[in-house]
Amino acid sequence: MPDDDHMSPGQFRELGGKLLDYIADYREGIADRPVLSRVEPGEVAARLPAGPPLQGDSLAGILEDIDEIVMPGITHWQSPGFFGYYPANSSLPAVLAELLCAGLGVQGMSWVTSPACTELEVRILDWLAEMLGLPDSFRSDSAGGGGVIHGTASEAVLAVMVAARERRKQAEGYAGGELTAYCSAQAHSSVPKAALICGIGTENLRQVEVQEDLAIDPQALESAIEADLAAGRSPFFLCATVGTTSSCAIDSVAELGRLARRYDLWLHVDAAYAGNACVCPEFRSMIEGVELADSFNCNPHKWLLTTFDCSTLWVSDRECFTGALSVTPEYLRSPQGDRGEVIDYRDWQVPLGRRFRSLKLWFVMRWYGVEGLQNFIREQVRLAELFAELLRPDDRFELAAPGRLGLVCFRFVGSDDENRELLEAVNSGGEIFLTHTVIPVGGKEKYVLRFATGSISTREEHVRRAWEIICSAAAGDA
Amino acid sequence: MPDDDHMSPGQFRELGGKLLDYIADYREGIADRPVLSRVEPGEVAARLPAGPPLQGDSLAGILEDIDEIVMPGITHWQSPGFFGYYPANSSLPAVLAELLCAGLGVQGMSWVTSPACTELEVRILDWLAEMLGLPDSFRSDSAGGGGVIHGTASEAVLAVMVAARERRKQAEGYAGGELTAYCSAQAHSSVPKAALICGIGTENLRQVEVQEDLAIDPQALESAIEADLAAGRSPFFLCATVGTTSSCAIDSVAELGRLARRYDLWLHVDAAYAGNACVCPEFRSMIEGVELADSFNCNPHKWLLTTFDCSTLWVSDRECFTGALSVTPEYLRSPQGDRGEVIDYRDWQVPLGRRFRSLKLWFVMRWYGVEGLQNFIREQVRLAELFAELLRPDDRFELAAPGRLGLVCFRFVGSDDENRELLEAVNSGGEIFLTHTVIPVGGKEKYVLRFATGSISTREEHVRRAWEIICSAAAGDA
Repeated sequence: MPDDDHMSPGQFRELGGKLLDYIADYREGIADRPVLSRVEPGEVAARLPAGPPLQGDSLAGILEDIDEIVMPGITHWQSPGFFGYYPANSSLPAVLAELLCAGLGVQGMSWVTSPACTELEVRILDWLAEMLGLPDSFRSDSAGGGGVIHGTASEAVLAVMVAARERRKQAEGYAGGELTAYCSAQAHSSVPKAALICGIGTENLRQVEVQEDLAIDPQALESAIEADLAAGRSPFFLCATVGTTSSCAIDSVAELGRLARRYDLWLHVDAAYAGNACVCPEFRSMIEGVELADSFNCNPHKWLLTTFDCSTLWVSDRECFTGALSVTPEYLRSPQGDRGEVIDYRDWQVPLGRRFRSLKLWFVMRWYGVEGLQNFIREQVRLAELFAELLRPDDRFELAAPGRLGLVCFRFVGSDDENRELLEAVNSGGEIFLTHTVIPVGGKEKYVLRFATGSISTREEHVRRAWEIICSAAAGDA
Repeated sequence: MPDDDHMSPGQFRELGGKLLDYIADYREGIADRPVLSRVEPGEVAARLPAGPPLQGDSLAGILEDIDEIVMPGITHWQSPGFFGYYPANSSLPAVLAELLCAGLGVQGMSWVTSPACTELEVRILDWLAEMLGLPDSFRSDSAGGGGVIHGTASEAVLAVMVAARERRKQAEGYAGGELTAYCSAQAHSSVPKAALICGIGTENLRQVEVQEDLAIDPQALESAIEADLAAGRSPFFLCATVGTTSSCAIDSVAELGRLARRYDLWLHVDAAYAGNACVCPEFRSMIEGVELADSFNCNPHKWLLTTFDCSTLWVSDRECFTGALSVTPEYLRSPQGDRGEVIDYRDWQVPLGRRFRSLKLWFVMRWYGVEGLQNFIREQVRLAELFAELLRPDDRFELAAPGRLGLVCFRFVGSDDENRELLEAVNSGGEIFLTHTVIPVGGKEKYVLRFATGSISTREEHVRRAWEIICSAAAGDA
């Protein structure tokens, strides 16, 4: 092929510079864009050609289409007015690390395919374990543990559920009873999805009732386990949620740990959002008992400034874990792998191939340092508390759950429909974006608004402004 | 937190420029580095600090460590001397798209979380379907099909196997027999891994014997199906491999399609590597019969210049597919999703969150155009043919399988150990890197060397030089 079909390194420098400017401009001006995209379904697709271009184009032509076609269809997750879902903050050091990751273009499926890709990951997962106050048993330099970066918490819970399933099936004394798993009724949808995918089936996942604080009810859990045992089933897996998606409710890891030990269940801790706050010692009490867990997961791509995707998973028994996921054909064998001298991360995950994702976590740790990350978390928690303080004295509103970390669940004192309309009014203004959930409030399922801080550019002024907008919408001025 | 903990857009422009230079220099000088990393196990980790930094650092400090600690541990997949595995080529337009993806930092789990992220993907997957000559049934604008970007072919085959499993379990007349799946003994390890993960179990995956050309033997396949039926089992899934990993062997999709229809099996076509070549009409005969398939997968991140991860999957019945994978909690509901007006890609995959990966495929299509991509594939096939031509007249060597597309399997006429030593001698020189496999040659399993073109910078001179190096190693001069 003609060499000039490729982008030359010289062009890359020049065009890359233009793109850096484009992104810097975007981040600088992001507050001026409507947070939630206003396009109608099909509008973006309709502006794209029906078929692919025969000949190549310039970067200028592509950037023009980004501006005109793509940008109107973007919901701006990095906007200071983004208070929806949980954050997925993407810091600029992490963005640069993604550039480097793509520029190197290496595969990390095996140690030998780029040793640095594996060894940097092993090491900084130990760093992060230390930063979060996780027990030594999860560290790679402990007797048998270790950490790995997955794409998402969904993949992590699937992988550990499979490992738990295999552990049980191979256990001495397993009599073949139907396997049953447990989590709270407020656990993330990835838990039933994992049960579905791995063949346990959602019908064998007990989504146990919660207490008033929306944490799992340990007594109800124990009753469910006992009932399954009495029916000849084989309880094998328990997921504790530290920071539910709806309301940041926190299951008692210590109590669940005791039950897991008593009934021989694999205990997985899903701390996808809240776990990040453990970089601050004052928040670590919420994972008390974590030394009883078999696996622990949190997502730096949510709240620790590391561009999606970066979901960190630790296991305390890596041999059991990889034994369940390892399938090694001849073409993937290496002398170092055969000798057991190295970690081959393909055996720690569902996919085979893997990106050099540890670069971005490393860039973030290096750029901010532990103290910078602590500052960030503390400030975002302070901003959520500020919002709750603004709301508390206002009779038109009520807290729908205790404010926890960066999340405040609240509602307009009125019907679900009124709350739905309020949310629509708030979001349609374009300056801020919130999402909703439905949770038990005073024993009754209600439509609730969620206000989650943590977007990278959110400052106090944005929170105060958000409160003004909400008040104004509630007053019908929107 | 102090605002100056964050990287400012101004710093981003400046530091990003330095990183662009770093990557451009890297790509320009890549041929001078030993392709296969020479570090020993543990060497990279040992050079990293034992714990995380308390305070933040500068980008200069990080780049210094990249040079001194990371780079020696890199195996250079983008090197012109990289002939190992299958390629994972990463073009510079795709690298820039990754930068943009991270810079925008949006989530594509639902349409509403960034409509452009979904609609660009829907549209260009239709483009790619057209480019590959796939039937209309796979297009989103057909009655019921559509495409989606997965991370890897492993995730794709897992997702379709789950969908097939659910389709069977919900089928009228399903009597509860044990489910059985089928692929060739040469199929990729991701097929048994999917069977393991989704609970079918590798013991219920028949890895059917192959013909002399290493394609699945349709008669042996039919016998296996019949035997399972006779034993009261329920055959439900068949994977055809178009381009096996070991030798690029090609199962007959048309014959397998007829069997799939006859026995009501979900037919998945795994064309992870070879499928990319279908951008050239002259290679499309290898997927003849693909209109009988329920799903088709190929990896532009292997051979179509799109930086990993970008694995494209099409299904002909998207309702059946998403029905099996959809779990929608309240906090993920949206009015547009509830009304069924939009695609929510979270229901098309295992994970929930997703990156804006279509950007990189779009950048590649725009930059190269269809013709540029065809040129690239044709040239890399020509280079593999050139290698085979150089080898064929040399009595010391034999082709171990017919050369196909960009892959040549060959061996030194001698023992497995001699071939193992030859590979080690070739790779230790540092100029080129090849990998191995074990496949039946003349009816006997033998250790075989694989020479795969497709690295982005490989030109004729590199192939000729590779042949010199191999000859010289065979002569004991290495």
